[in-house]
Amino acid sequence: MSHRQPPPEGRCRAVVENVAPSVDGGRFPVKRIVGDRVVVEADAFADGHDVVLATLLHRPPGAAAWAEVPMAALDNDRWRAEFPVDRLGRHRYTVTAWVDRFATWRHDLRSRVDAGQDVAAELPIGAALVHAAAERAGADRVRLAGLAAQIAGEAASADRAGVALGDELAALMARHPDRSLATTHDPELEVVVDPPRARFSAWYELFPRSAAPEPGRHGTLRDVVARLPYVAGMGFDVLYLPPIHPVGRTARKGANAVTAAGRDDPGVPWAIGGPEGGHTAIHPELGTLEDFRALVAEADRRGIAIALDLAFQASPDHPLVREHPAWFRHRPDGTVQFAENPPKRYEDIYPFDFESADWRGLWAAMADIARFWIGQGVRIFRVDNPHTKPFPFWAWFIDEIKREAPDVLFLAEAFTRPKVMYRLAKEGFSQSYTYFTWRTTKQELTDYFTELTTSNLREFFRPNLWTNTPDILPEHLQVGGRPAFELRLVLAATLAASYGIYGPAFELGEHRPREAGSEEYLDSEKYQLRHWDLERPDSLAPLITRVNRARREHPALQSNEGLAFHGADDEQVIAYSKRNADRSDIILTVANLDPHAPHAATVELPLETLGLPIDRPFEAVDLLDGTVRLWQGSRNRVALDPADHPAAILHLRPGLRSEHDFEYYL
Amino acid sequence: MSHRQPPPEGRCRAVVENVAPSVDGGRFPVKRIVGDRVVVEADAFADGHDVVLATLLHRPPGAAAWAEVPMAALDNDRWRAEFPVDRLGRHRYTVTAWVDRFATWRHDLRSRVDAGQDVAAELPIGAALVHAAAERAGADRVRLAGLAAQIAGEAASADRAGVALGDELAALMARHPDRSLATTHDPELEVVVDPPRARFSAWYELFPRSAAPEPGRHGTLRDVVARLPYVAGMGFDVLYLPPIHPVGRTARKGANAVTAAGRDDPGVPWAIGGPEGGHTAIHPELGTLEDFRALVAEADRRGIAIALDLAFQASPDHPLVREHPAWFRHRPDGTVQFAENPPKRYEDIYPFDFESADWRGLWAAMADIARFWIGQGVRIFRVDNPHTKPFPFWAWFIDEIKREAPDVLFLAEAFTRPKVMYRLAKEGFSQSYTYFTWRTTKQELTDYFTELTTSNLREFFRPNLWTNTPDILPEHLQVGGRPAFELRLVLAATLAASYGIYGPAFELGEHRPREAGSEEYLDSEKYQLRHWDLERPDSLAPLITRVNRARREHPALQSNEGLAFHGADDEQVIAYSKRNADRSDIILTVANLDPHAPHAATVELPLETLGLPIDRPFEAVDLLDGTVRLWQGSRNRVALDPADHPAAILHLRPGLRSEHDFEYYL
Repeated sequence: MSHRQPPPEGRCRAVVENVAPSVDGGRFPVKRIVGDRVVVEADAFADGHDVVLATLLHRPPGAAAWAEVPMAALDNDRWRAEFPVDRLGRHRYTVTAWVDRFATWRHDLRSRVDAGQDVAAELPIGAALVHAAAERAGADRVRLAGLAAQIAGEAASADRAGVALGDELAALMARHPDRSLATTHDPELEVVVDPPRARFSAWYELFPRSAAPEPGRHGTLRDVVARLPYVAGMGFDVLYLPPIHPVGRTARKGANAVTAAGRDDPGVPWAIGGPEGGHTAIHPELGTLEDFRALVAEADRRGIAIALDLAFQASPDHPLVREHPAWFRHRPDGTVQFAENPPKRYEDIYPFDFESADWRGLWAAMADIARFWIGQGVRIFRVDNPHTKPFPFWAWFIDEIKREAPDVLFLAEAFTRPKVMYRLAKEGFSQSYTYFTWRTTKQELTDYFTELTTSNLREFFRPNLWTNTPDILPEHLQVGGRPAFELRLVLAATLAASYGIYGPAFELGEHRPREAGSEEYLDSEKYQLRHWDLERPDSLAPLITRVNRARREHPALQSNEGLAFHGADDEQVIAYSKRNADRSDIILTVANLDPHAPHAATVELPLETLGLPIDRPFEAVDLLDGTVRLWQGSRNRVALDPADHPAAILHLRPGLRSEHDFEYYL
Repeated sequence: MSHRQPPPEGRCRAVVENVAPSVDGGRFPVKRIVGDRVVVEADAFADGHDVVLATLLHRPPGAAAWAEVPMAALDNDRWRAEFPVDRLGRHRYTVTAWVDRFATWRHDLRSRVDAGQDVAAELPIGAALVHAAAERAGADRVRLAGLAAQIAGEAASADRAGVALGDELAALMARHPDRSLATTHDPELEVVVDPPRARFSAWYELFPRSAAPEPGRHGTLRDVVARLPYVAGMGFDVLYLPPIHPVGRTARKGANAVTAAGRDDPGVPWAIGGPEGGHTAIHPELGTLEDFRALVAEADRRGIAIALDLAFQASPDHPLVREHPAWFRHRPDGTVQFAENPPKRYEDIYPFDFESADWRGLWAAMADIARFWIGQGVRIFRVDNPHTKPFPFWAWFIDEIKREAPDVLFLAEAFTRPKVMYRLAKEGFSQSYTYFTWRTTKQELTDYFTELTTSNLREFFRPNLWTNTPDILPEHLQVGGRPAFELRLVLAATLAASYGIYGPAFELGEHRPREAGSEEYLDSEKYQLRHWDLERPDSLAPLITRVNRARREHPALQSNEGLAFHGADDEQVIAYSKRNADRSDIILTVANLDPHAPHAATVELPLETLGLPIDRPFEAVDLLDGTVRLWQGSRNRVALDPADHPAAILHLRPGLRSEHDFEYYL
């Protein structure tokens, strides 16, 4: 029978467990942005009744030593402290706790003194503890030694007890605790600190090849530069471009994917690579690398980050197919295996074989692609189908890139099963596409966003809500008319701090599917050039501008904390509020989910929770049309006619202001 | 900038996470009893659309190799399998998952065939996979090689596809999967398998010194032997004895703890140790080691396990005080530190100093004490105040003892903060005292037992509910009269699978506190001998006998799974059912929590969940008085008069039986 050895040190009596925030017990980092304060809680306790103390340890990337913050005891053996994260990258933190012999002795001494007991026999014990502290106290050594001598001295024991119980000694001893038997939580935990855009961003997607101002011409990156005022004017701060690389010729698809490509068909941008180059080349019809750098620079001047697509796959014409055949799977006849979902075939796409014996070479090449574009100024990547590449690859790849460039962000375009999506976020993706596009009923929206914002998902999964994408024209946009577009815009922009639209299809109300029952766009830009008339009077651009302005001006909309759903007595009316941490900003969104008919509901607000006055009126300022409602009490009625506005974004203000305060909104 | 190395093998595409059951991510074992089947679930998935397979690995204590059970896919990437635990000790288990290339190929082949595609070009790929399997297949090698040859052969491709899709090949390939790139969950998880009494037990506590049949004489272990038929007759299967060791003389306490001990005062049994010996000696007035062995043997014949008290502390007269002064804390004047909770002093008790430099020697000595009594036949220890000894000690101690004697059980007598109690259970205690003794209202009982039985606590914290202890005469027993005793007995015996009473104080209705507002017994046996008249006509022994009989005959009451609380429309009436896994046994307990007045309530039962008929009557057989109620539908009325019975334990039977079936109950 094997025996179990005692631990190397069996006298570490304190226990630290249940440290939060953490993901899967510390296996994955949590996520924050620069400027956040990370609030850490832990259970810490020991056997018996001795005094336990706990300290939060944290250190920024690259630092060798821990910084410390003493933790405060909450109820039920729970402790809390917080630390700021002012630098990008992976910070580490953990909690250490120990039985503090001096604090215990002092606590007991106080009880004895209060009970009128003679404490003369106790004082030498405390004096010895203070003396021991002096030995490890550096600059405080002399003072502590002096206090130890007083406590051990010849004065009346009441006077010596007074010294022992004094504030000066308590403060000095707290600075020099005996932590030789402390317990430090293992493993250390990590927090990845990103730039603010990781949390709060408004994305606009467009196809550069459709950006020409005149019909029929292939758009260029210079055309996209010219489009920047339009995008910035609507208030977007990320401009995402589908792949800008040379497009494959072999098995190229034609318009609507139903025909073989004709001579002039531009092909699918995700079929990357041709004689002109692969993932680090620019499609000649779009322009040059110099044009691209000019685009990045001009976008930056307008507060817009260019997001590139990372689609790790190749057209049959990609240079890598010849240069690194080992990175592709080959069939017995020697041909390269194209993409399939049997019986469907995608012969214009060769997936990389991540089970390749040369997987290390493949990984390194993928990182070099990202490095190349980072070198051109790119700081955001939208990653195409990350769920078809191995998780260990993403864990390594994202960490590798972010160690070199911790301001780089990755958006996971994984529309798949929930656990796969969540795992990708754990592995390091900064933001994630969501099921929002298909969540339409009040119950669905409430359940989904309650899960995303109140479960532990919020520590690592940052939702980015898209109204539409080149792959997804959801049914409600096909049939709901303009109210459906307005509705989905408002929901996306207010339910989460990050959202996006694929335009100009969205703001111009493009709603024709390729065929009935399909989510594919008719005449999709994936397969052909489109020309868009941005000046159309029915464009949603003015509404989008107002929505994005509300987001920029209201901190409540810039984080996913503080989302709460509220009662509304009509099944088609959804109501939810967001508030910032100090409740200085409260935004209530009320939306009519039925694009075909007016609905009205009484909305029930928890006034106390929201910090709104219970006994006097407060204002509800409509950020979309500037009207001001005067509300009172927890129940207020909202009527929404989709012909007018299907949704209201209301700024709830506790005080009544004078008229001119409202000018701002009008 | 440091770079992150790729993992040693980056092609392990499967992910395994969220394995259940587990405690704190595998840091602590879960608990089961011999004969259980451990149901294991895990999330397992991979990138892409390839087929993932998962297998449960498990091995009993001492086994070198894993046994395997293929897991079944549930919804949402969840997998499940189970394994039996037929041996005591620590079993290990984990989950391995992998992308199965053959299963993927076969699945795709099926799709191609169903779509009418020519699969001739696909067959060599499958043949190669089958050929590779043959190489690792041992006895199946020849057959697999033959099938590979057929698939690669000259026959019509439809015929070869038929072989490839056949059941024989599927079964053979499932036996010889390619797991070279499998992912195995780390860490391995553990389950401690205990004897059945760890889960289901009825404890009786008595002071041997009060066991003499005649008043005034110090009871002996032989008297306890004579008391066994009484204890067994009531249906108890654990007899717990407070410490039976020599009692210290120094600072001995007298009756009611308020006087200094007189010459004849027996002292407190927990003040362990005198000139006659310490923790391995028997108090001379109780008898000899031989008497003790005789007691253990006779108890065993009656199906009763003797539980000894492990109180790791010493009286000032304990031999260890002289032999191992380093195991005690000394004051500056050289005296040994007695127990204190300043300003209170307990001068008859010296705690061991677990911060002693010789902590290893102390730990070893404590284990030797347990070993000594295990050598005398003891298999259950009730551990006194475990929360005043370090957690690392218990982790080592319990594991050390159970490696040698895996049938040994430890009950933690920790009445302290919840996280401390739960941590002790995590560290290895087999059962734990609870807050039951102070939970009296419907809400309190419902909340507490819902937490204990439906949260992850159920994996490691086994509650043992005590109506009373020598330290706790709860207020409701002081004031509630006989109905309160009946009520608390029924609640303890039916809310959890393990419970206990301290007798004969309990069955004889002892309810006098030492003083008003105290939970101490007047004339407590802790400080003096008591004589009990077991023949008193008002003894609760007959009721206890019926309750324990119901527990023995009804599997529903022998586990804490399947507890559910039900609606009852009177605030003083609580109703809850327990059922076994296959719902063949359903026990409904309905109790009137008000000992002073009759109450009645309509009890609302979820008939479908309980497996009871919705459209015809069923029987509710009262296991305490034998009456049979005929019930129908989900709402049935129960009236409980505390003067008669404050609680009913009802066996719900779906079928109507003939009269003579009931004789059994009468």
